[in-house]
Amino acid sequence: MRAAIFNGPRDIVTMDRPDPVIRDASDAIVKVELACVCGSDLWYYRGESAHDHAGIGHEFIGTVETVGPAVTAVSVGDYVVAPFAFSDGTCPHCQAGFQTACPHGGFFGGNGQDGGQAERIRVPLADGTLVKVPGGARLDEATKRSLLALSDVMGTGHHAAVSARVVEGDTVAVVGDGAVGLCAVIAARRLGAARIIALSRNPVRQRLACEFGATDVVDARGDEAVQAVLALTDGVGVDAALECVGTNEAMTTAIAIARPGSTVGYVGVPHGIEVPVQTLFRRNVGIQGGSAPVRAYLPELLDDVLAGRIDPGRVFDAETDLEHIGEAYAAMDERRAIKSLVRVAA
Amino acid sequence: MRAAIFNGPRDIVTMDRPDPVIRDASDAIVKVELACVCGSDLWYYRGESAHDHAGIGHEFIGTVETVGPAVTAVSVGDYVVAPFAFSDGTCPHCQAGFQTACPHGGFFGGNGQDGGQAERIRVPLADGTLVKVPGGARLDEATKRSLLALSDVMGTGHHAAVSARVVEGDTVAVVGDGAVGLCAVIAARRLGAARIIALSRNPVRQRLACEFGATDVVDARGDEAVQAVLALTDGVGVDAALECVGTNEAMTTAIAIARPGSTVGYVGVPHGIEVPVQTLFRRNVGIQGGSAPVRAYLPELLDDVLAGRIDPGRVFDAETDLEHIGEAYAAMDERRAIKSLVRVAA
Repeated sequence: MRAAIFNGPRDIVTMDRPDPVIRDASDAIVKVELACVCGSDLWYYRGESAHDHAGIGHEFIGTVETVGPAVTAVSVGDYVVAPFAFSDGTCPHCQAGFQTACPHGGFFGGNGQDGGQAERIRVPLADGTLVKVPGGARLDEATKRSLLALSDVMGTGHHAAVSARVVEGDTVAVVGDGAVGLCAVIAARRLGAARIIALSRNPVRQRLACEFGATDVVDARGDEAVQAVLALTDGVGVDAALECVGTNEAMTTAIAIARPGSTVGYVGVPHGIEVPVQTLFRRNVGIQGGSAPVRAYLPELLDDVLAGRIDPGRVFDAETDLEHIGEAYAAMDERRAIKSLVRVAA
Repeated sequence: MRAAIFNGPRDIVTMDRPDPVIRDASDAIVKVELACVCGSDLWYYRGESAHDHAGIGHEFIGTVETVGPAVTAVSVGDYVVAPFAFSDGTCPHCQAGFQTACPHGGFFGGNGQDGGQAERIRVPLADGTLVKVPGGARLDEATKRSLLALSDVMGTGHHAAVSARVVEGDTVAVVGDGAVGLCAVIAARRLGAARIIALSRNPVRQRLACEFGATDVVDARGDEAVQAVLALTDGVGVDAALECVGTNEAMTTAIAIARPGSTVGYVGVPHGIEVPVQTLFRRNVGIQGGSAPVRAYLPELLDDVLAGRIDPGRVFDAETDLEHIGEAYAAMDERRAIKSLVRVAA
């Protein structure tokens, strides 16, 4: 099969690799139709974190091609979406809806696990991981793009909103206008936020944020953004701040605009964040978040996609085929694209 | 009047001071019956934080003696309990139940505000601050001791439990066996925790914790305590960890025993805490807490005290009069007492 391989910083190559095979009885092999590039893939792309010379990517949708003898929840021919992490579905953490803490689980596209940016991928613990999509391969293109967004960014944005305890009527601010931040806007609206303030300085992303439900845009960063959000909220701050970047500046902003008693939901992988505990204590602001348990959220979000209530697939604004996946990475690295889709099979 | 004054580290003196007078129309003067010493008072007592040569103490109950012309919620002769912080009761933060963030509020016993370890105290913003106690001065001694505990430690322990989102059926761990930790045990039980693990190495405090509702005691600290709590919870961790100390060791322990998806409620004033954000992210554990909005919790906790459902006053295991208050401090400093009561008026 053809698969994208990390060949070194800014060097993604597509090459021939052996087809994956069933290793454990609970495995499934999925034939990938659509994959994509994640903001977190850029860390190794830019050489800022290490990665094996191996398969990459953790977001994909496609069709089950083979199942191990222990697999019962999906069958050959099922159209499926997978979260970026696999999990057994039966341990206490999975049962509690925190599949990313599953002791038998792991993440796709690294540490010996197949990547989704390939024609085929071995999915461990298929019963606990894969979600069958009613309607399957015959769904329209827009729906499929939204299904692909459910594999990570939509569930991650939702996790920011859930972690920040967004409830009906809230005023919510979203820090970060990447795909996750934009999906967090969708999530906040979906949970009933009355007012959604998007922090973005990019006109294209501002427009999409507003189409997704943002009611206000703050076209500033740092202190200037904090003052603007406070001005919009009569000096009170927001009921929930969603930190969707992972930098210290974004976290500092989120904490400063969160009203006393509220929680910053954070889902950007932390890079250089120093948590100002004295400020948190003095202001009674909490932080809650982490690697999103996308598998827990998939069923409800899938229903909304299939019913046309949310369309997170609109975050994809660039596309390549698998042979030209380097350009998919470059477009995101250079911020020419919000998120790049990779068409693996026609 | 007689009042305790901070005269320097380990030097608390009782001396004559002018009686307080109404300064603002919203003030009340309260004649103090019972006061007490807080764990946080030990920071200046030990010379670890600065304090004015002035009145001290932020916990008291007593009788309203004078009210300013704008005061309508309490009257002369009312028996009252006050939270450790005063607040206007009308701003958005007060209305949302976060009175410790009131922009017009402040804390008793420092920064120019009267202390409660005195015969009389001026209470700013009396309408927003004081809570009238039905039954008044004729209540029995045990009830009064519990009312006094409502001024800080019971409300603070409750804030730890609320911040950690304790709900019916939870397994909860309490880190810290001081008065706040012991009150956190009461709070966890009151909120329906099915299992309460108290971390304590002191037999007297272990016993009181169990009488308050602890179902398990872990007689260890640090890594050993973490392993013991994990062993008690089948390796899963607790649904809510209540950090009631404020040291880095206590916070580290609380984070390590909190199950993925849960929240550490923390109410100990942070001293030397470094928040391990990578660990929080990886484990999906949040932290939430701060200076407890005791005023918000007073009505419901007062009901429970008056109905005999909770008896937080049992944390007082030492007593002096106002003239010998130095011994009240010393007993807590030397850990001879959990919490010292100061009888100001007969």
